[in-house]
Amino acid sequence: MSHSVPAAAPCAPDAPPAHPTPDVLLRAERLLAARLPHLAAHAIITADPELLRDESPTPATAPALIVAPGTAADVQALVVIAGALALPVVPRGARTGLVGGCVPRSPSLVVDTSRMREVHRLDIAGRTLRIGPGATLGEIEELLRPHGMMYPPDPASYRRASIGGTVATNAGGLRCVKYGVTDRWVRTLDVVLADGSLVTLGHDVAKDATGYDLTRLFVGSEGTLGIIVGVGITFCPAPAESRLMLAAFASAAGAAAAVATLCARVTPAMCELLDAGALGSRDTGALVPALGSPAGWGADPTLLMVQVDGSHAEAEAEAILARAALELAGGRVVEVAAAHTDAILDMRRGGSAVRTAGGEPSAEALVDPGMPQPTLPQDLSVPVARLGQTIAAIRRIASTHRVQTRIAAHAGDGNLHLLLLTDAAGAEAGAAARAGAAQLRGAMGEIIDAVLASGGTVSGEHGIGSLKRDWAARDLGARTIELHRSTQRAFDPHSLMNPGTGF
Amino acid sequence: MSHSVPAAAPCAPDAPPAHPTPDVLLRAERLLAARLPHLAAHAIITADPELLRDESPTPATAPALIVAPGTAADVQALVVIAGALALPVVPRGARTGLVGGCVPRSPSLVVDTSRMREVHRLDIAGRTLRIGPGATLGEIEELLRPHGMMYPPDPASYRRASIGGTVATNAGGLRCVKYGVTDRWVRTLDVVLADGSLVTLGHDVAKDATGYDLTRLFVGSEGTLGIIVGVGITFCPAPAESRLMLAAFASAAGAAAAVATLCARVTPAMCELLDAGALGSRDTGALVPALGSPAGWGADPTLLMVQVDGSHAEAEAEAILARAALELAGGRVVEVAAAHTDAILDMRRGGSAVRTAGGEPSAEALVDPGMPQPTLPQDLSVPVARLGQTIAAIRRIASTHRVQTRIAAHAGDGNLHLLLLTDAAGAEAGAAARAGAAQLRGAMGEIIDAVLASGGTVSGEHGIGSLKRDWAARDLGARTIELHRSTQRAFDPHSLMNPGTGF
Repeated sequence: MSHSVPAAAPCAPDAPPAHPTPDVLLRAERLLAARLPHLAAHAIITADPELLRDESPTPATAPALIVAPGTAADVQALVVIAGALALPVVPRGARTGLVGGCVPRSPSLVVDTSRMREVHRLDIAGRTLRIGPGATLGEIEELLRPHGMMYPPDPASYRRASIGGTVATNAGGLRCVKYGVTDRWVRTLDVVLADGSLVTLGHDVAKDATGYDLTRLFVGSEGTLGIIVGVGITFCPAPAESRLMLAAFASAAGAAAAVATLCARVTPAMCELLDAGALGSRDTGALVPALGSPAGWGADPTLLMVQVDGSHAEAEAEAILARAALELAGGRVVEVAAAHTDAILDMRRGGSAVRTAGGEPSAEALVDPGMPQPTLPQDLSVPVARLGQTIAAIRRIASTHRVQTRIAAHAGDGNLHLLLLTDAAGAEAGAAARAGAAQLRGAMGEIIDAVLASGGTVSGEHGIGSLKRDWAARDLGARTIELHRSTQRAFDPHSLMNPGTGF
Repeated sequence: MSHSVPAAAPCAPDAPPAHPTPDVLLRAERLLAARLPHLAAHAIITADPELLRDESPTPATAPALIVAPGTAADVQALVVIAGALALPVVPRGARTGLVGGCVPRSPSLVVDTSRMREVHRLDIAGRTLRIGPGATLGEIEELLRPHGMMYPPDPASYRRASIGGTVATNAGGLRCVKYGVTDRWVRTLDVVLADGSLVTLGHDVAKDATGYDLTRLFVGSEGTLGIIVGVGITFCPAPAESRLMLAAFASAAGAAAAVATLCARVTPAMCELLDAGALGSRDTGALVPALGSPAGWGADPTLLMVQVDGSHAEAEAEAILARAALELAGGRVVEVAAAHTDAILDMRRGGSAVRTAGGEPSAEALVDPGMPQPTLPQDLSVPVARLGQTIAAIRRIASTHRVQTRIAAHAGDGNLHLLLLTDAAGAEAGAAARAGAAQLRGAMGEIIDAVLASGGTVSGEHGIGSLKRDWAARDLGARTIELHRSTQRAFDPHSLMNPGTGF
């Protein structure tokens, strides 16, 4: 067991100070050594921000005892230790989150599930997989592909993201517009509750009306109700054929209108929008010569990436209809040869200046590497029919606040990823950075107001974490936040589980 | 306001006695007259079993004050009155439930939402409808059909069932195998909580990761968390084409195996199984001459009804694959001409000896009108791959207990509707009826054990109500039932809302 207890926890300028003393961590460590000696090699007390971060700019504001258990029984014993010490428990998976949902804010026990990746049962005929929470979606893809099956949720980070973490955040992704987000695919969850008990929620069946849907309540609960130690999912046959087309538009408004035209006629498997800011200096013409460079598309170049899939006949029919709809809406459509599809999708998924917790480029990438460090990544969700007016409102507000915008949207779902940038975004600290941050917060506050006024919400797929609690409170309202608190206490009367996350 | 207060509440032999005195109902009525005089014409105190029943054999064991409010504000005021008197609140819709979920067990305020059927907003382009909870699925079908849209959940009672009631039970139906059950289609719920407050849960968006999914928690909560006073749903384009085929099998085992073969190749929009008991004396040959009478199919005649849908190309392709799969699995396949499809589906949905609350034939019909009154309707859900072995287990157990079975399954979902009958089922009362009931309970207990052992659950789409509480407790286990109770208290600290239902 290695140590790196600092004299004081590092504090970011605006973060609350770490109040309880790290002594509790030493006591936790002693209990761990006595009761779970086999975990000694998988435990560390640390305040190293690199070991405590996710992929958001959320700073850890306290040291933590990080333990990586190997079994559900380990997790139960760990929660009992934490309960005895009133030590907050922060569950985490692969740390690909974007809202600081697994970043400790006071001395905590961080339960890292990344070692728990065992396949408990794979039943291809029954279309069910029971697997440890630490398995990545990439590993699940490898398991299913030889059988012609796929698990649809595909957040941009899916190769690295853990199934447990994606369940805890109800992760979405590119193809959710057709296949739905995580909650559609989860059937059972094994969870360790705050009292150390282990229960299995749900059943391995297609239809389940027995009692409350506590499985779904856990999906998206961001570690505040318990720790997910086993996940049972269902999956579906991978489509026989996928067809990807790119459509160049002269304006974001035109592209947004095209999304409505398109979705009234076909059910795309993917419908992504990249605005001029997100396209940046990317040379789309180098990837797809027939598309040319965005500069040639018009004053406000905007790209739609539309994929249809299904049986050969279905994909063919959908592709014809999709192309017609996009052209009808004013798009210049280029179909991408199958051999180049992966490169195009990687362009959508990758290539950011944001570092991952593991040092790789972040997968939720919107801007090319040459751009300044983005700040305030957002994940707004609006009615699809209001996509265009929302983009217009964002740009109007950003212009007033002299802030730049980059928008990449899961447009078919009305789910907008928005980055706001100021000229000060590159500043490391000091007055310029603080002024820039205030400028961004001001703009974002008005954008949130516009989104809520149009019936939208502050998160479509990333969750609330610690970054968006104030906005979530504004979104949900006082009475619904009360319901959240009382529901949380129903599972965890002493607020042990990931306090300060979500609400 | 009309009265019919009995001297004592009628009690069924096995039902608990009504304990609080009906005096509380008179006090509730006085408060109602003072505070909500406009509801006088829509209120009645009654112990009439006909006015208090659903479509299950659950007897009301107490009188109730039934009030049919017109607005959400009415419901709020009613709940405040009930709270002041500690009077249980029983919400109900169209009373098409099959588990006694809206049948009072002690003197109660029954909040009948059937007058609240206003269309608040219909947005075809945005694919959202906000409507009062009392609107029937049949009315919603009429609203959407002219626009080429459909709301998929279609419990057999859908023409009469209310949207609020189907949300409260997470109703399924025939085409859920492709389109999912109610929870996939609900986006927002306006609910009145036990303290009389009104909140809107969820957002009108395709993807929502803001806070706990309390909307989904309400779906299937059977009136125990609050009263649904407004429902926001999404919908989808009605398929351009549907193709229905019937497949005759010589045995239930063969038909069950065919379901697996079929579902591995296509995604049917409907996949129903009727066993020999459910087919009874129906002359399928009269409906579809090429099919002939079940007596000619083999020793254990079993029917699969398979529908595929989609665009013309997709339906055509799926129909070819479906027919091939069914024939490969030993079925004799007859495609039904479009003109006769409705008659066939009505055969599946209708024709029972069970009366509805409104006196019409029940829609959850499994037996033809000539058969004895069925009892103990069940709604078991098992992994699809275990459908065949579950049917075999049911028959083995039934045979031991000398009980007859009728099985109609949403086979593609593994959801079995099972009726058990004894020779005494027709007896109105007395020793024969009691002995028959004990015989049925014994058989059903063993069947439940077999279902739970195979990973199944006691309800796929009807819910638990008051009929299946003991089985649900066995299914979920003590710790999960505790979680249900604490979750319920989080919303309703004084257990006002539909106590005794679900768990």
